[in-house]
Amino acid sequence: MADKKIAFVTEITPRSKDFSRWYLDVVKRAELADYSPVKGCMIIRPYGYAIWELMQQALDRRFKATGHVNAYFPLFIPESLLRKEAAHVEGFAPQVAWVTRGGDEELEERLVIRPTSEAIIGMMYAKWIQSWRDLPILINQWANVVRWEKVTRPFLRTTEFLWQEGHTAHETEQEAEEEALRMLGVYKDFAEQELAMPVIEGRKSESEKFAGAVHTYSIEALMGDARALQAGTSHHLGQNFAKVFDITFQARDKSVQHVWQTSWGMSTRLVGGVIMMHGDDSGLILPPRIAPYQVVIVPILRGNWQETILPYAESVRDELNAAGVRVTLDARDSYTPGWKFAEWELKGVPVRLEVGPKDIEKSQVLSVRRDNRNKVAFARKEVVSGVQTLLSEIQQDLFDRACQFREEYTVRTTSYEEFKKMMEGRPGFVISPWCGETICEAAIKAETQATIRNLPMSGLEVSATCVRCEAPAREQAYFAKSY
Amino acid sequence: MADKKIAFVTEITPRSKDFSRWYLDVVKRAELADYSPVKGCMIIRPYGYAIWELMQQALDRRFKATGHVNAYFPLFIPESLLRKEAAHVEGFAPQVAWVTRGGDEELEERLVIRPTSEAIIGMMYAKWIQSWRDLPILINQWANVVRWEKVTRPFLRTTEFLWQEGHTAHETEQEAEEEALRMLGVYKDFAEQELAMPVIEGRKSESEKFAGAVHTYSIEALMGDARALQAGTSHHLGQNFAKVFDITFQARDKSVQHVWQTSWGMSTRLVGGVIMMHGDDSGLILPPRIAPYQVVIVPILRGNWQETILPYAESVRDELNAAGVRVTLDARDSYTPGWKFAEWELKGVPVRLEVGPKDIEKSQVLSVRRDNRNKVAFARKEVVSGVQTLLSEIQQDLFDRACQFREEYTVRTTSYEEFKKMMEGRPGFVISPWCGETICEAAIKAETQATIRNLPMSGLEVSATCVRCEAPAREQAYFAKSY
Repeated sequence: MADKKIAFVTEITPRSKDFSRWYLDVVKRAELADYSPVKGCMIIRPYGYAIWELMQQALDRRFKATGHVNAYFPLFIPESLLRKEAAHVEGFAPQVAWVTRGGDEELEERLVIRPTSEAIIGMMYAKWIQSWRDLPILINQWANVVRWEKVTRPFLRTTEFLWQEGHTAHETEQEAEEEALRMLGVYKDFAEQELAMPVIEGRKSESEKFAGAVHTYSIEALMGDARALQAGTSHHLGQNFAKVFDITFQARDKSVQHVWQTSWGMSTRLVGGVIMMHGDDSGLILPPRIAPYQVVIVPILRGNWQETILPYAESVRDELNAAGVRVTLDARDSYTPGWKFAEWELKGVPVRLEVGPKDIEKSQVLSVRRDNRNKVAFARKEVVSGVQTLLSEIQQDLFDRACQFREEYTVRTTSYEEFKKMMEGRPGFVISPWCGETICEAAIKAETQATIRNLPMSGLEVSATCVRCEAPAREQAYFAKSY
Repeated sequence: MADKKIAFVTEITPRSKDFSRWYLDVVKRAELADYSPVKGCMIIRPYGYAIWELMQQALDRRFKATGHVNAYFPLFIPESLLRKEAAHVEGFAPQVAWVTRGGDEELEERLVIRPTSEAIIGMMYAKWIQSWRDLPILINQWANVVRWEKVTRPFLRTTEFLWQEGHTAHETEQEAEEEALRMLGVYKDFAEQELAMPVIEGRKSESEKFAGAVHTYSIEALMGDARALQAGTSHHLGQNFAKVFDITFQARDKSVQHVWQTSWGMSTRLVGGVIMMHGDDSGLILPPRIAPYQVVIVPILRGNWQETILPYAESVRDELNAAGVRVTLDARDSYTPGWKFAEWELKGVPVRLEVGPKDIEKSQVLSVRRDNRNKVAFARKEVVSGVQTLLSEIQQDLFDRACQFREEYTVRTTSYEEFKKMMEGRPGFVISPWCGETICEAAIKAETQATIRNLPMSGLEVSATCVRCEAPAREQAYFAKSY
């Protein structure tokens, strides 16, 4: 048994050797997700889903604290409704799934499975909103959406995925803009505080913005292979959907006006982001705040361990549990401690506690950090406070390490020769001046595979000419190869 | 403004006059749900969704406490997979939605939108389960499902609905049976403790069991119009799916065996059940444990109320909040207190607190119960404990009242003449002896519209002959007209 399992754990491709292979191995071996019989659809297994549940709770708390409420809109959108907003349908129609039959009958009108819900929600808002007193409307939805993807990868790009989509309506342009930025801030805070994932906030270029938006903001993170990942987006929709769906209200001055809207979303793709940002050759490394188990206790199986070591381990578990630490005790006797160490490292549990005869003798517990493998013995009486401190430190250290990595992999250049050379490898973020023209952006993408991730909010100064053309630069852009 | 709104509140049809109309009015006016442009699909509005969220949390807590974990399986099921289990496909194929196109291409194989997930989950379990060490598997999923319904009604029967579906696999038949009964017990406990909804536990007859199950258990509740509602079901699937999907494991004795399975589900239909069980002519009455707001504070708008009454009301709100009571303060100045009373009664908030100049003078707060309109003044210092006690009492009283109602509307008869006569009206539950034959059951349904709700677990004694035919009765059955 033990032999079979050791082989199982070591089946992971080293991260340094093949990042993409390593990613798929971790997803599979840590039992985060599995492939389904439907092309491009994954199964989120319990361990992966537990991570998503913790992310959901942390996001939902933030949504409610900023005045949002949840609701649920239908999975189906009539074709005619999707077609109302021209840019929106152009962006989404090529990648939707079509329902053409219900029960025994051919449908008179085809239904789209929602790729996003602006259309159906817009139609309902038109019905619900009468007066400025009804505004703002601040609704979020937790749901599944479907986009018919050609190339898929678990969590990162799947035909069906889980997400939340916020949809708000406001009296004024300024309020909508503030909301779009507020939610971008919520996303940044969530990514950095919960996922230990430093992100760059910025505005998307015209060519990368959401189909139907006035402008799109995003947060972008740098993964362990120095590719960028779009971690969340927040759109200012202006009055585009309001005009199409006739969402009007009687204003304070009695005039009839169209509402101003936003929408914003984050998805299960973030589980993939966490894997790629923190993991190493031994597997997953989970930030404590989203770890299903923050601590695993492994008893050393010596002599009559079930009478001596097990009760000691159980009392440690119960204390941690009572203090609100998510802890599991691995008391299986068919596996060696060494095998268990490897399995729980693969699963990324932040802290391992080892309990052996010597530890009991010294009235202590040995702690091992997953991220740097540092070992520290805690006196038995101080296990709870010791573990709590350790978990905070790990959370902070993972964030700091990711910041440092990003710094190392962020470069600036104004020379296109240098830019092209860099993009032959994987330079991370390259900050370069850009003329603001879509044609130039497209040429850069075609010539180097790099895209503009976003135009940072921090307002980097620019006095140069565009990295590619002769025109004066309008702003600095974050370029990268991305997921 | 006030006039328009008073009219709005009074638009509810009296419950006694037309129960069905009353139900739809409450759903609409209390902003629980709205109709969507897709036939049979509803929108769950924030107030309705908040009730569902509280139900979810209460159920999820119970699932986790009994060792279950959550996961997520795909929305799509390939047609060939659904067709594998003969009884299952026969039961569901007539009412599924079909996806035939993805993006620009016609699909080679049609996809079903899950009406339930036994097939796709069975296929994955076959992959995941190798040995008895992998058992039991205790997975639950929170998801949307689609059943193409011809006649729909918000919450009670909709084309798309939200639910949870548990799917477990076990080593032995006995363990599976225990699990099916354990989850039926969890459902009963949830319905009675959280929803204040007394239920009858029992086994479904052959003709009413789940397509593919060995047997189905259900809990059945009696609504305010004396119709029965199936509130939850738990199925013992035996080895039916295991054999079709080849879900085998190496047993302790090294033999290869098929697993034994269960599945069980509860849905948003329960929101409809709560409305129909507790509501009255003024609208919704919510059991405190699932009320989005347990308390509403309405300040009486006199004189300089914003300087005097408002701060007093705010301090009451803050104290209740801190004590974990879900409370809202309705400080809008464009509505009269009377109008607010009617609105919050419509929305079923269990306790209203009124704060006027006299209350401040006497250092008190006036409480009004939604269910029986009893008024009690609490000394300002005792508001929190007073409210907490009141909420517990209301929860219990609603349950007791529902039990009493059910007792009044449960009758027994062994005479088919009497049975038929009763069923011309709405007698509630009719307990009668039954021969156990499907043909006889079908005849009763055709002749009276009554169906067997279930065969109660309490093992009612039976020594008579079948209520309809001459044959000796096999058991007592709960008959009713149902939703």
